[in-house]
Amino acid sequence: MSYVGESHKILRTVRVNLMSKPGYLGKVAGAIGKAGGDIGDVTIANIGPHSVTRDISVQVDREEQLAEIRAALGQLEGVEVVDIFDRIFEMHRGGKIHMTSRVKVDSLAELRKIYTPGVADVCRAIAKDRNKADFFTGIPNSVAIVTDGTAILGLGDIGPVAGMPVMEGKAALFDLLVGISGVPVLLATTDPGEIIRTVRNIAPGFGGILLEDIAAPACFEIEEALQRELDIPVMHDDQHGTAVVTLAAVLSACRQVGMNIRDAVVGQIGLGASGLANAKMLLDYGAREVLGTDLQQPAMDRLVEYGGRATNMNELMKKADIVVSTTGVAGLIKPEMIRKDQIILALSNPTPEIEPELALEAGAAYAADGRAVNNVLGFPGIFRGALDAGAKKITSAMLVRAAETLAGFAKDGSLVPGPLDREVHRAVAGAVQKVAMGE
Amino acid sequence: MSYVGESHKILRTVRVNLMSKPGYLGKVAGAIGKAGGDIGDVTIANIGPHSVTRDISVQVDREEQLAEIRAALGQLEGVEVVDIFDRIFEMHRGGKIHMTSRVKVDSLAELRKIYTPGVADVCRAIAKDRNKADFFTGIPNSVAIVTDGTAILGLGDIGPVAGMPVMEGKAALFDLLVGISGVPVLLATTDPGEIIRTVRNIAPGFGGILLEDIAAPACFEIEEALQRELDIPVMHDDQHGTAVVTLAAVLSACRQVGMNIRDAVVGQIGLGASGLANAKMLLDYGAREVLGTDLQQPAMDRLVEYGGRATNMNELMKKADIVVSTTGVAGLIKPEMIRKDQIILALSNPTPEIEPELALEAGAAYAADGRAVNNVLGFPGIFRGALDAGAKKITSAMLVRAAETLAGFAKDGSLVPGPLDREVHRAVAGAVQKVAMGE
Repeated sequence: MSYVGESHKILRTVRVNLMSKPGYLGKVAGAIGKAGGDIGDVTIANIGPHSVTRDISVQVDREEQLAEIRAALGQLEGVEVVDIFDRIFEMHRGGKIHMTSRVKVDSLAELRKIYTPGVADVCRAIAKDRNKADFFTGIPNSVAIVTDGTAILGLGDIGPVAGMPVMEGKAALFDLLVGISGVPVLLATTDPGEIIRTVRNIAPGFGGILLEDIAAPACFEIEEALQRELDIPVMHDDQHGTAVVTLAAVLSACRQVGMNIRDAVVGQIGLGASGLANAKMLLDYGAREVLGTDLQQPAMDRLVEYGGRATNMNELMKKADIVVSTTGVAGLIKPEMIRKDQIILALSNPTPEIEPELALEAGAAYAADGRAVNNVLGFPGIFRGALDAGAKKITSAMLVRAAETLAGFAKDGSLVPGPLDREVHRAVAGAVQKVAMGE
Repeated sequence: MSYVGESHKILRTVRVNLMSKPGYLGKVAGAIGKAGGDIGDVTIANIGPHSVTRDISVQVDREEQLAEIRAALGQLEGVEVVDIFDRIFEMHRGGKIHMTSRVKVDSLAELRKIYTPGVADVCRAIAKDRNKADFFTGIPNSVAIVTDGTAILGLGDIGPVAGMPVMEGKAALFDLLVGISGVPVLLATTDPGEIIRTVRNIAPGFGGILLEDIAAPACFEIEEALQRELDIPVMHDDQHGTAVVTLAAVLSACRQVGMNIRDAVVGQIGLGASGLANAKMLLDYGAREVLGTDLQQPAMDRLVEYGGRATNMNELMKKADIVVSTTGVAGLIKPEMIRKDQIILALSNPTPEIEPELALEAGAAYAADGRAVNNVLGFPGIFRGALDAGAKKITSAMLVRAAETLAGFAKDGSLVPGPLDREVHRAVAGAVQKVAMGE
């Protein structure tokens, strides 16, 4: 979850009652747009004899814009604002996940099979042969989703409990997209040593560990130590999951302008956890050279350790054929910095380092912002593939293949495929599994 | 899970093809019984024109008995053994639980509500007011089921992974019986200090902690420390969950012979984790005196600490009006030890300390073994009630009320109600909740 900021937008549903005549929806949409509201889905809530009730999903930057929208719509004839409500909270009520029984227990005979005394047979079989647990428990299909709450979305260190809605979201997506049983683990500690120790202590119940929203630099130490000590896949999503989707976007952009990344110099602006992971992924993929820049010297040192070259913003913009920025700083890239025929992926959300239109005007061959680059495209298929292969770790080769697969599914004109396409997740899983099994 | 031993029985399904004429099932049942097989459910698997295929659930003590049954049935005319198979393993395949999404995500608009960017609104609301997590996450409905694998069923220290089928069974029952989301946590350590530390570190994600199958004496220290340090309910099921069901059984037995437990001396034979918890529960309930005996001096000391009196087997049998035994030692109580009009609950499984018939012949007013005393009757309703009340701990008063409620549902002639009766679990939950809320 490295692409900050978009999360600060306010999402509401505007329910309006309209005359059922052509043109009314246009007026409404126009008024909302004028007030700065970004319209998403428009669905019909009810059809009356002379009017229709529509739910219009609207995104705004500031609370006051909602009042402006309400006022503007109120002045339109034949339009009535029924309500402006927050559907988001309704969808989160009671939590988004539940540990569900896969067996029915409708008789004492069934109870005696799934529980005592019958269950003892299964326990004994596993005690005799640990591998039996792969068949008769859910362990190999379970992934712990671990956070200490220090870097939740772009909100920062708001604590693990406030981060739970994100962890539950990941667990829900694991279930819905690839059938993995994801278990949120909220840590009461932010000490790296203590986190490592705790995760190691609860690891026997899981087939994989997804580290989530843990701040840099602790996230590096934690991931490295856990992957070294555990024989199940461990991945920090904010680094590698996001980097996979970013590499996919870079590959798509290259394809669209006919650039070969292996001949290209790539510049990564911003070397936080995700920026560094992007740089590493681009190096692993075989980019000719990876330049990087950041205000923090330790981040620059780490880039060099990975095999990249630390530099300043000016040199980077001059030398790079492909520029990826994840700084969270809107407008950081000025049009005059753009070199002709560069690829510019200004991925910070909600406002990119440079608006794509501006970059294109300044001579870029291709430019995009980060709206579509959603990490939902990465982690589900990566873990599905790793678990199916019985992989002990998630390697660079697996991640690179995941990115290539995603890029392969991107339609012309878009950087990545749609995040809810099950076929895409299955394909990523299959590709990752193959690499893991050395095929 | 304190009543050992029954778990050592072998459960199989015998599939037989029978002439569809009266009398054949009787012959088959007779032959199975003669070979020492205990028959459970008999279901029809298929009905042919002249024959019927039946699945007969059979429990035996030794593997060889299965061969004897097969041979005996083979000699019956018009009877064909199709298969003897193990349905238990089939029911456990792939594990018995799965973390399931409670929301549907069929459109990008929905994805943006349950995940980024919409989820950030919910995170921010919780960051501002921690209590919001009770409404917009599943935390208050989640219980960690924690084991270190040191005392799995009666199988002993077989490790946490081999214990997973039991933990999954509890989670499945939590879901099916009371709608709690139960999350198995398998610990890679058996050190009490390390266990306490680990559970404390993962506690923020849960509304309660069920400790499970942790050996004595570590279980005492772990439960006490965690309940002291955490502000959510912590309960070691092998102690208190089982003790609730035992107290219910004692209350039912008393009612059936017209004895008042408050005037009675109760003797607890065997002071392991569950025996001690029984003693404590009986003391909390207000038994006139609780005697206890065990071979281990520390266990005797602990009983005294609780307010009971340590003694020897002979004195206990002489003085106690009610005898509860949980030693795992078959035949420990001799008929000549029985005092007239005693209540004898010889709860060890599969073979009690004295067979109920023998105890009754020897003058007992009431005698029973432990077959029906299943801890499934306790933990689901206890936790449902505690969570619904937002209780910070599970008190003796809550446990006592749970036991009384269970006893109230026991039909005459039985000690406790059936474990799959949802109404019973609802009633226990309601009663526990009331006590927790001070009503």
